[in-house]
Amino acid sequence: MNLAQKLGYPANTKLLMIHADDAGLSHSENLATMQSLVKGVVNSYSIMVPCPWFYEMALWAKKHPHCDHGVHLTLTCEWERYRFGPTLPASEVPSLVDANGHFYKKREEVQQYATVADVKKELTAQIETFLSYGLTPSHLDSHMYSVGSRQDLFEVYKELGERYKLPIQRGRDLTDMVGLEDKEPLSVNAIPVDKVHIGDMAYFEKGKLWDYYESVFDNLIEGFNVILIHTAFDDMEMQGITVNHPNFGAAWRQIDYDFFTSELAKKLVDSTAIQLVNWTTIQKILV
Amino acid sequence: MNLAQKLGYPANTKLLMIHADDAGLSHSENLATMQSLVKGVVNSYSIMVPCPWFYEMALWAKKHPHCDHGVHLTLTCEWERYRFGPTLPASEVPSLVDANGHFYKKREEVQQYATVADVKKELTAQIETFLSYGLTPSHLDSHMYSVGSRQDLFEVYKELGERYKLPIQRGRDLTDMVGLEDKEPLSVNAIPVDKVHIGDMAYFEKGKLWDYYESVFDNLIEGFNVILIHTAFDDMEMQGITVNHPNFGAAWRQIDYDFFTSELAKKLVDSTAIQLVNWTTIQKILV
Repeated sequence: MNLAQKLGYPANTKLLMIHADDAGLSHSENLATMQSLVKGVVNSYSIMVPCPWFYEMALWAKKHPHCDHGVHLTLTCEWERYRFGPTLPASEVPSLVDANGHFYKKREEVQQYATVADVKKELTAQIETFLSYGLTPSHLDSHMYSVGSRQDLFEVYKELGERYKLPIQRGRDLTDMVGLEDKEPLSVNAIPVDKVHIGDMAYFEKGKLWDYYESVFDNLIEGFNVILIHTAFDDMEMQGITVNHPNFGAAWRQIDYDFFTSELAKKLVDSTAIQLVNWTTIQKILV
Repeated sequence: MNLAQKLGYPANTKLLMIHADDAGLSHSENLATMQSLVKGVVNSYSIMVPCPWFYEMALWAKKHPHCDHGVHLTLTCEWERYRFGPTLPASEVPSLVDANGHFYKKREEVQQYATVADVKKELTAQIETFLSYGLTPSHLDSHMYSVGSRQDLFEVYKELGERYKLPIQRGRDLTDMVGLEDKEPLSVNAIPVDKVHIGDMAYFEKGKLWDYYESVFDNLIEGFNVILIHTAFDDMEMQGITVNHPNFGAAWRQIDYDFFTSELAKKLVDSTAIQLVNWTTIQKILV
């Protein structure tokens, strides 16, 4: 049986999850994510524990337990002037931080410097902190998919899924993106995404990101589709965070917010022959 | 000789410093503080090292070494949903943090729980971090004047001033505010402020904060006057930080910014019989 069948749908169902990454990053990201969950079509999201606005998002998540919140496991801080580091003291995970004790900016630096022990310690601390706020995660996923930067780090990610009995976000599109081979899943968290839909810089630069999202609904495949987005406002705070980083920058995130709270998106979700799912749905069929 | 005479002015000079607290707190606070220094009449400011936007402010400070920047020693985080903790790992300074590892909200909690050892360790770490960014502080001061919450913590503050050969912000108005007796200063950092001018909630609630600032220029005394302000924009980020906290909230900080970058403020500074000073000026007469 495939995932659709296990969930009680015909085998050829187009399953769709619309997932917002990066909650906790900033107040702007938090507000936009909350609104996209409440009044938009976003039906799953994940929170970055080491970020300055984690606390606000955690309070909201606790008041909205029906929303599908995961831990957005974080090993990088890609921003130029807004710098944060691990949940653990930098001195306890020295292979994850730069000279100022902040996360490295690039996945390639994680690949080059991170030790398995430090990654395991830090990601465990992130999950434990999330749990300590009385939150029940629906899934684990990975910021910039840095857990896929090396096979041994990917094994840590899988181990954490098994240990905490949580589905992890995985799939050929993700591992291909980071140049990793994802061997056949075997465990409770073995639910690969069949197709990841994510905007890229070419669409954004041409002003075609909105059109791309519209076209995604024509290109959903039979199986498990995930649209990965980042919702925030194009305000001074986000412009400050994403300065010199138009890729997933403030203007981009505003488009994500605008599209996925639009009437058009609601119409597409309603009219397209799809079945919405999220990790809470999927967790029910895990033992 | 009094301070004015030591600086080469007549004994009865009205010395004035206009000082912005809380740089580093947020992007909004940073941008407003930079602008109030560059195009306004603010001539001194201090940076909070443990805050999420410290890095941005430190980069700017390094590029603007002529601006008078101090370390705004921080032992509290008074905000409801924007929570930060010490520079050191929370486990190393347990008496300074709540169950989530964040600073307490109130000065009274510092008074009740903080150990001398933890305060000394943490404040030293803040100064050392500031120095590690290649910045030369002009002075030390204290967020919410928490260093004045107990005599023994005040002694740590004085010790740090001596150890780093930096003037510390002190004065009867400040110690009276927190209920502390400030004994006669004896050391290199023994330069008390004769009069601290700071807006209070009554002015703000009546919409009279701007008028208060205007009136300050009529009420400067002979000696060392300091106007203490907090410059930021009344934007979504600051509204999120200061939610349920109108006292020194986003709207208040916008007024501080507006007044101290206004033509009126420039006119008052020019036309009032005063002598502007800042800690860099004062440092020159310290041995």
